[in-house]
Amino acid sequence: MAGDAKERVIEGIAAAPGLALGPAWVYRPPDLTVLPPAGPVDPEAELGRWEAARRQVRERLDELAGRAREHAGEDEAAIFAAHRLLVDDPELDGQVRQAIAGGRTAAAAVATVTESFAESLEQLDDEYLRGRAADIRDVGRQLLAALLGVRLDLAPEEPSVIVAHDLAPSDTARWPRERVLGLVTEAGGATSHVAILARAAGVPAVAGAAGVVAAVTPGQPVVVDGSAGQVVLHPTVERRQAVERALAARAERARTLAALRDLPAVTPDGRRVELAVNIGRPEDIAAAEEFGPEGVGLFRTEFLFLDRSRPPGEETQWQAYVAAVRALKGRRLVLRTLDVGADKRLPFIDWPDEMNPALGWRGARLSLERPDLLQTQLRAMLRAAAEGPVSVMFPMVTTLEEVRRLRHAVEEAAASLEREGVAHGRVEVGIMVETPAAALSARALAGAVDFFSIGTNDLTQYTLAVDRTSQQVAALYDPLHPAVLRLILEVGRAAEEAGIWAGVCGELAGEPLATPFLLGAGMAELSMHPRALPEVKRVIRAVRYDEARQLAGELVNLPTGDEVRRRLRSFLAERGVEPET
Amino acid sequence: MAGDAKERVIEGIAAAPGLALGPAWVYRPPDLTVLPPAGPVDPEAELGRWEAARRQVRERLDELAGRAREHAGEDEAAIFAAHRLLVDDPELDGQVRQAIAGGRTAAAAVATVTESFAESLEQLDDEYLRGRAADIRDVGRQLLAALLGVRLDLAPEEPSVIVAHDLAPSDTARWPRERVLGLVTEAGGATSHVAILARAAGVPAVAGAAGVVAAVTPGQPVVVDGSAGQVVLHPTVERRQAVERALAARAERARTLAALRDLPAVTPDGRRVELAVNIGRPEDIAAAEEFGPEGVGLFRTEFLFLDRSRPPGEETQWQAYVAAVRALKGRRLVLRTLDVGADKRLPFIDWPDEMNPALGWRGARLSLERPDLLQTQLRAMLRAAAEGPVSVMFPMVTTLEEVRRLRHAVEEAAASLEREGVAHGRVEVGIMVETPAAALSARALAGAVDFFSIGTNDLTQYTLAVDRTSQQVAALYDPLHPAVLRLILEVGRAAEEAGIWAGVCGELAGEPLATPFLLGAGMAELSMHPRALPEVKRVIRAVRYDEARQLAGELVNLPTGDEVRRRLRSFLAERGVEPET
Repeated sequence: MAGDAKERVIEGIAAAPGLALGPAWVYRPPDLTVLPPAGPVDPEAELGRWEAARRQVRERLDELAGRAREHAGEDEAAIFAAHRLLVDDPELDGQVRQAIAGGRTAAAAVATVTESFAESLEQLDDEYLRGRAADIRDVGRQLLAALLGVRLDLAPEEPSVIVAHDLAPSDTARWPRERVLGLVTEAGGATSHVAILARAAGVPAVAGAAGVVAAVTPGQPVVVDGSAGQVVLHPTVERRQAVERALAARAERARTLAALRDLPAVTPDGRRVELAVNIGRPEDIAAAEEFGPEGVGLFRTEFLFLDRSRPPGEETQWQAYVAAVRALKGRRLVLRTLDVGADKRLPFIDWPDEMNPALGWRGARLSLERPDLLQTQLRAMLRAAAEGPVSVMFPMVTTLEEVRRLRHAVEEAAASLEREGVAHGRVEVGIMVETPAAALSARALAGAVDFFSIGTNDLTQYTLAVDRTSQQVAALYDPLHPAVLRLILEVGRAAEEAGIWAGVCGELAGEPLATPFLLGAGMAELSMHPRALPEVKRVIRAVRYDEARQLAGELVNLPTGDEVRRRLRSFLAERGVEPET
Repeated sequence: MAGDAKERVIEGIAAAPGLALGPAWVYRPPDLTVLPPAGPVDPEAELGRWEAARRQVRERLDELAGRAREHAGEDEAAIFAAHRLLVDDPELDGQVRQAIAGGRTAAAAVATVTESFAESLEQLDDEYLRGRAADIRDVGRQLLAALLGVRLDLAPEEPSVIVAHDLAPSDTARWPRERVLGLVTEAGGATSHVAILARAAGVPAVAGAAGVVAAVTPGQPVVVDGSAGQVVLHPTVERRQAVERALAARAERARTLAALRDLPAVTPDGRRVELAVNIGRPEDIAAAEEFGPEGVGLFRTEFLFLDRSRPPGEETQWQAYVAAVRALKGRRLVLRTLDVGADKRLPFIDWPDEMNPALGWRGARLSLERPDLLQTQLRAMLRAAAEGPVSVMFPMVTTLEEVRRLRHAVEEAAASLEREGVAHGRVEVGIMVETPAAALSARALAGAVDFFSIGTNDLTQYTLAVDRTSQQVAALYDPLHPAVLRLILEVGRAAEEAGIWAGVCGELAGEPLATPFLLGAGMAELSMHPRALPEVKRVIRAVRYDEARQLAGELVNLPTGDEVRRRLRSFLAERGVEPET
């Protein structure tokens, strides 16, 4: 019967790129209706249930965070860390206890308190806080499920395309990665949590596919085109064959790239570039090994600080850093000091109210005013350096004075370890170049550091004065704007003159279209998402360094980002390595 | 007796620079207690009182705005425009009417409704909105005074130092400027409304002077040192004489500068620089004439758009622009198109929620998406150009594509006037250079515009990634950071090569310490607050252009802003024109 059904294309929003074909599995959220209590309510017993439910959800969130970390990354895992903070929120706890003391069941208390929290956030004139309402509802559902004894973890039995009205982050992370071929939702958009998780995990996804739940036949094949934002129900035989051919071609390409794994990233004329990876936890190194990284160019240390009410001690930090040093077996580890700001708050820091947090108190600006936090972190880093090569990198620097003070802080930490007779090693000291000021001052700063690592995301944001999370101006965000390229080239040339190394750890490092430019600008290291590494290596092995240098000089003088892209595409096409778009 | 009192120094916060000496006049806010109604309340009569009170306060605010504009400037007058919007706020009106309908007197209704508005704002986790609570209380007091028949406009009879526990903006603007020698308050800080008004009006002020109201003797002399943040009660004879000598020296200096009024701004080796002024309304030109401006380098057109529920029509705008053209009698008028953003909202624009409004939808970015607003404004500007030289300037540009679209919009407006046979003139078309991207792309952009005007405030903000309204990072804000200077120099050199003019309309243009650099960077025009003009002219007349050019090349290679300042100070000192600090 289903075979007779006509092919039907549903247009949605492209939420995560890629193509998938597989049987539909329809997810319907379980019923979490709270019924009135059958008999008298015992507040003591309800309090016990509330405690047990919180415990259960805490464990579940840790597991989900672990899974997200493995299949996606640190940013994605942070969603669950934020949910854990909500479970432990003293105000939530207080209000639920009060409701229970007032004679309600734990389930009724959770349902009303979380909903009223979510509603009050939704009424605020602040997009960010409104977004938090969804988080609170997600946590509320998990707590309710625990209290009602309802299982939330239904999963498809075979690899499937998951179709749902809407998905909470905790839904998405729950399913074993290998059983999720694609995701289709009726709700949501390109910037929802689910879209972020899908992109990070490499799962094609379409959001905003109106009417798909009613129209789909469970078990029947569905095509998800996450790049075009299309879902095809009851695909024709021709369509299915075309999709299968495309998937086979991609798999072939992946095999070719895998074959590059153990080859060096070296140009035909002998320029070596170190291809490293960005990680958020020591465990990420093992997961990245399949792509053959030559080191870690950016270890974001924030995970140690999130999800806790007091800052982590030196021992806790040392364990994380030394685990990464050991996993790298002699390859370089670049540790970035704490990089938070008013848009990513920690409970043990007094945050100012800022109109524009991106232009405010963040990164090294904060570290310099919290020497307690900085010294503890530097001591742990220096101690880890006793077992392998470690570089310390400071984010958000704009002046030479800051660099001098930061270097001094490193010396102070080393001196204190020395006095105490604690084993430690020497470290390289470098900075992220992510403000136009730092890039324009590269010559002055180069004398005071051992390396530069360009944060192209923030550098683009400040150079163009564009916050790419603002939908109204996101289209102006362009890391290939000639102004950004000029700054990168300046940094590269200043590093060469001073005899230090310069690299890139922003997203541009993993963008194969940009590789010839970054190579030509003198970048000696590119650090990226592990998945991006093979394609970038393929480009480097196909492009001559002398030609790339000439190209870089040309590109910075082009008038627009579009012309830069055109020129880069033709440059790569001439060399037979045009990247997939 | 008072003469026998010991001198007493009270330390406060430097709220507005300068020195004053005069008799103390203590301001005590009038009693606005609302007594219970003596007889039955007639809702009809109370509604009438409410209407009358609003009318009276509206008129008063218009008068205060006019006075602020005359003695301070457009930004200061905007405070009262915002208050007027509050008086007309439909929600306030609705709630007061509801309270009156519920049997309360108009006075009681106003007292409770405005206080509850203010309190709900104070509870929000947003510094800006909390600041608005003070505005609402100020408006509430004025409405109450009108309802209770209490006079708010007590004023000193002779020139005095005004001492108060706290001052509302409407207090400050009320007193005739010539009777206010200085301001001293126990409350407030350097960023309060009162501090802003005092600085703009050139009145020395000290805030946070604890206990001053109780300690001061009305009528007795008081010294206000607004630069040091000190108040001296019962000053000794020696102290008074020293202050009088300092005031006489300043007056002498002012006379010397006034003598420069009709001399050209030309260097000893013959380089002419156009010294222009920044204005917010056509009337500002008359007030600026005493300083001898050679044109208007920045006419902020926002005043036409504020304080109204619908955008101003072409006729309204034309009247304002042509008034300025006529007042300038042949001197150049640079009209900037609407420059608002999510931190300065207008009611007839749908505003997005943005995490970082400074990196968001503002200036030309907004104009390009609202061609209705842009075309009306451009038509009015082109029509004004029929009577004198007009330049159109676009704010917040980052790409060549934007410039092309904006130029096209000007051509479109000219073509529509042509078709309709409406008189209009040719205009120069230029851009503000206020993003690092625009400065770094100056060579590409120079071919598409007739002039550049550098907005040093925003350019500094983006280059250093520092929002100077954030107290935590304000100390990093430094327009003399070598990175900012490099961008200015690039813009100057690019303009020279392309044969167009470049100027500065940011605060740096009025900073005499920076004048040798700006001159040497090839700036052909400097546009500033009128008061700053004489001192800048004095520097230009003392510095050789060839030496300034060499200096500019040197300064951009210095490592820090402090070294830039030191070098500039010694450069000026060698030429005998060190500016007052």
